[in-house]
Amino acid sequence: MSSLFKTIALIGKHDNPEIMTPLLHLGQFIENRNLDVVLDSRTAPHIQDKKYTILSLDDIGKRADLAIVLGGDGTMLNIARTLAPFDVPLVGINQGRLGFLTDLSIDTMLETLGSILDGQYVTERRMLLSVEVIRNEIGLFSALAFNDVAVSRGIGGGMIEFEVHIDGEYVYSLRSDGLIVATPTGSTAYALSSGGPILHPSLDLITLVPVSPHTLSNRPIVIGSNTTVEVLMHKSEEGARIHSDSHSHFDLDEGDKVVIRRSPQTVRLLHSSNHSYYRMLREKLGWSGFS
Amino acid sequence: MSSLFKTIALIGKHDNPEIMTPLLHLGQFIENRNLDVVLDSRTAPHIQDKKYTILSLDDIGKRADLAIVLGGDGTMLNIARTLAPFDVPLVGINQGRLGFLTDLSIDTMLETLGSILDGQYVTERRMLLSVEVIRNEIGLFSALAFNDVAVSRGIGGGMIEFEVHIDGEYVYSLRSDGLIVATPTGSTAYALSSGGPILHPSLDLITLVPVSPHTLSNRPIVIGSNTTVEVLMHKSEEGARIHSDSHSHFDLDEGDKVVIRRSPQTVRLLHSSNHSYYRMLREKLGWSGFS
Amino acid sequence: MSSLFKTIALIGKHDNPEIMTPLLHLGQFIENRNLDVVLDSRTAPHIQDKKYTILSLDDIGKRADLAIVLGGDGTMLNIARTLAPFDVPLVGINQGRLGFLTDLSIDTMLETLGSILDGQYVTERRMLLSVEVIRNEIGLFSALAFNDVAVSRGIGGGMIEFEVHIDGEYVYSLRSDGLIVATPTGSTAYALSSGGPILHPSLDLITLVPVSPHTLSNRPIVIGSNTTVEVLMHKSEEGARIHSDSHSHFDLDEGDKVVIRRSPQTVRLLHSSNHSYYRMLREKLGWSGFS
Amino acid sequence: MSSLFKTIALIGKHDNPEIMTPLLHLGQFIENRNLDVVLDSRTAPHIQDKKYTILSLDDIGKRADLAIVLGGDGTMLNIARTLAPFDVPLVGINQGRLGFLTDLSIDTMLETLGSILDGQYVTERRMLLSVEVIRNEIGLFSALAFNDVAVSRGIGGGMIEFEVHIDGEYVYSLRSDGLIVATPTGSTAYALSSGGPILHPSLDLITLVPVSPHTLSNRPIVIGSNTTVEVLMHKSEEGARIHSDSHSHFDLDEGDKVVIRRSPQTVRLLHSSNHSYYRMLREKLGWSGFS
Repeated sequence: MSSLFKTIALIGKHDNPEIMTPLLHLGQFIENRNLDVVLDSRTAPHIQDKKYTILSLDDIGKRADLAIVLGGDGTMLNIARTLAPFDVPLVGINQGRLGFLTDLSIDTMLETLGSILDGQYVTERRMLLSVEVIRNEIGLFSALAFNDVAVSRGIGGGMIEFEVHIDGEYVYSLRSDGLIVATPTGSTAYALSSGGPILHPSLDLITLVPVSPHTLSNRPIVIGSNTTVEVLMHKSEEGARIHSDSHSHFDLDEGDKVVIRRSPQTVRLLHSSNHSYYRMLREKLGWSGFS
Repeated sequence: MSSLFKTIALIGKHDNPEIMTPLLHLGQFIENRNLDVVLDSRTAPHIQDKKYTILSLDDIGKRADLAIVLGGDGTMLNIARTLAPFDVPLVGINQGRLGFLTDLSIDTMLETLGSILDGQYVTERRMLLSVEVIRNEIGLFSALAFNDVAVSRGIGGGMIEFEVHIDGEYVYSLRSDGLIVATPTGSTAYALSSGGPILHPSLDLITLVPVSPHTLSNRPIVIGSNTTVEVLMHKSEEGARIHSDSHSHFDLDEGDKVVIRRSPQTVRLLHSSNHSYYRMLREKLGWSGFS
Repeated sequence: MSSLFKTIALIGKHDNPEIMTPLLHLGQFIENRNLDVVLDSRTAPHIQDKKYTILSLDDIGKRADLAIVLGGDGTMLNIARTLAPFDVPLVGINQGRLGFLTDLSIDTMLETLGSILDGQYVTERRMLLSVEVIRNEIGLFSALAFNDVAVSRGIGGGMIEFEVHIDGEYVYSLRSDGLIVATPTGSTAYALSSGGPILHPSLDLITLVPVSPHTLSNRPIVIGSNTTVEVLMHKSEEGARIHSDSHSHFDLDEGDKVVIRRSPQTVRLLHSSNHSYYRMLREKLGWSGFS
Repeated sequence: MSSLFKTIALIGKHDNPEIMTPLLHLGQFIENRNLDVVLDSRTAPHIQDKKYTILSLDDIGKRADLAIVLGGDGTMLNIARTLAPFDVPLVGINQGRLGFLTDLSIDTMLETLGSILDGQYVTERRMLLSVEVIRNEIGLFSALAFNDVAVSRGIGGGMIEFEVHIDGEYVYSLRSDGLIVATPTGSTAYALSSGGPILHPSLDLITLVPVSPHTLSNRPIVIGSNTTVEVLMHKSEEGARIHSDSHSHFDLDEGDKVVIRRSPQTVRLLHSSNHSYYRMLREKLGWSGFS
């Protein structure tokens, strides 16, 4: 059977020499199937065997039919965001501890990957958020978020104050440590720690989760993905910040408007056919039954 | 302008004489517009003026173009469930305290109703749940729920034990006081008190909210409405019960399967054109801004 | 070295034949130290070897210098409450899964017990609550609680309504599923599932934890142990109940007053010298560090 | 009747000209009772009438028998901390919105103050925390906290990692937004927003409240006040900070030890005889009964 995937990119966790051996195993395994292996340029320095074509992530996006990411959820988050414009399907392999996004185990990766290359997989589309910060009607910062956009207090010890508007309608004013605007993917990350609900990843939804809200009755809200969330910053004594996937950030001033929408781009994840989201939840969250 | 609504039903809170005067005002107001007034048979005894046709709720369902419900959210919940098969649009008038479902104030009801009869309204469709209890493959109990289906401990003091399956897949086993399976409408009721998220009512979603779960990491989950939730009851020392809208209930035994799905029926609510869901949330939940 | 404990009672989990073998090992171990073994009369039927004196729990209370309880926390809770008037020190051995109150492992019980009999132990005093239900100024029900007193809704689906007074002062009115009044021992049981804090067991404190409160800003309160908590029941559609340690219960009527105070009795627990409350918390609650 | 209080200090909210008129009323009222008025040196610039002795807070501490603070809880917090070494009793007057610490209303302040000067008051002692940051065995920062000491993430978006030890014993490792160590006074402030319990202010207790903990089963813990809490900082990508009363702060490095203990100093608050802590809770938290 000929695979749908001809060119397969290998991407490893940044600055992590331990990935070399499993990456070489993956490369050999793919070569044995007469498929082309290309290597992420930031991963390549860890691989001494120089036989593979080295590409930037952008070129991987343009040329690869499948990208295999070896690392933790943090690595997967960053790669997925970067490759989103190219719609390359992604497979995530964890280095030992199951991840929400890296569901293949390194111990069984060759077998599982073989099945996937044979066409035995399920595809999952995940939504992304785009965020823009507008000051005096000028966009100063923009980013994609796979997990969440978080408006947080800066280095000061005090709460921040802001207003939330949805689709142009005033929703509430809040004084809090912050506000997390999360995708279903992000609903099991920071938002969950702050009391947000778990959103099934097949749904296109946005959840707004307050962090340590002064108004005790302010609770997480779930809205549709075809909405525009605006957070209007009020005066904060010692600054406020926006974080996208706890990764890129931008300092906010009084009057800044943070505009969050669903991105037209999506992430395509491939899982083995017997992948189970709920089993993963049970394992990750330690739901141990009646014990 | 001729109204779309020719026959208008008046329905009041059960056993509540205070509704008589406002109902008479409503009746007169509708008559003055040359529309037909019909009266719910359980509301009629409170109205001394016997000029209106008295109908059962079923006949109201068949004949009325609009049903006006005067009372609290509890009344609205019951009427909406009963009239759901007939798809009659509903308007809710509260007797003093704003309700989530009864958003017209008694003080301004004539004016608002006038606008609605003139065609100035927005229509909102709300989903319902159907629940069935299956014992030894036989359905023993079934009900509709507008807010929620709750599996709860019975009269004993101990937790109940059950398994949750979604679309045939095992999700978790839990020991807890109960489990609430709520619609977006119900998300601001019992589920909210138990830590569930607020689901925007325009969405067709189901949330599963554990009540006092023994597993501290068990958190509310939001899933799509095209799913089947099954709760399989384990042995409970002193009994378990299912409640539909805190209204009808059924005692559960070990091995019983509670099957919850979206109902094909919906509830159609009419609101005045300037109705705002978020303003209602702010008022009902006491979101007082920065104070 | 002669032991402080001359007569040692063995008490096993009710109706559990698996305790026979470990109990016989315990008995032999104690005999070998030339100490007297007495056997709880409800445990005795599981022990075929009839050489030990069989006593009721009351007589154990009067005669034993130490009671060894083999079972889970539920067994320990019941025995501790019953023996509290006699101030007999207790040692708890779990049958496999670590308990909050049964901290000795069955695998190492002989060694640990040997150390305890040699005087290498720490003593911990735990407070108890007494509860009384007063109707028309007459006390109708009273009980001791080691974990908690819970006022809960009865078999109906609706919330219950009640007022809380502390030391005669009105504190709040609440509509909820219930209210848990817990000791530090109970703070890691039902109260924790309902969002209550963990109270260090060395403290004499009472915590009031609402269960699914309608008022979202109603939060757990911690008060001193020299207080009187009164819960005054309002009308409930389908009944309310009081539970003491999820064990004994009593049906409540409108107007009933539930009076909860610290009991003058205490429970004396013995632990091995290297017992750590925080290590137990970590294990029981699955605090897994940074993983 | 001669007052116990001879010299009374007036202290107003910083940089708030609105306090001038009520302060002058207070000054006149006290003068009319033949008591001495002294004025805080930072408050004095707002008062045009220069007849009162102007003193630094330290001198107020040494000379005043009573300090009247006009402002919000933030002002009271700062003044109380500064005057704590001098054990001057404090009365708090709020400028309009009831405070947890400023319980006298400006509308009735003269009447209430008159009663207090006549000896009709209750005294409340509140505990304080002292915090010290130790790096390489050298103390680099120390502060008093009336509400709380909070270890928080710095300007980066990631969680911080730390270990908690109590009285030298390891309690847990946590990845979170932060950790709040609060007094009973602080239990209704930041700690409450983060899910902590309300601790009755008559108790000498410390509560540890995690902020958005990665470990979902990590819950608030309440311990005695005669304990030493140590927070050992692990590596954080973008820094961590300690805040004392959201007021003073210090940047933390990997390996820093934050040591928190009860301060030997206390704050003495005077309330009118009919002051009720629970009534204040109801008002501040919006506990509206059955509505």
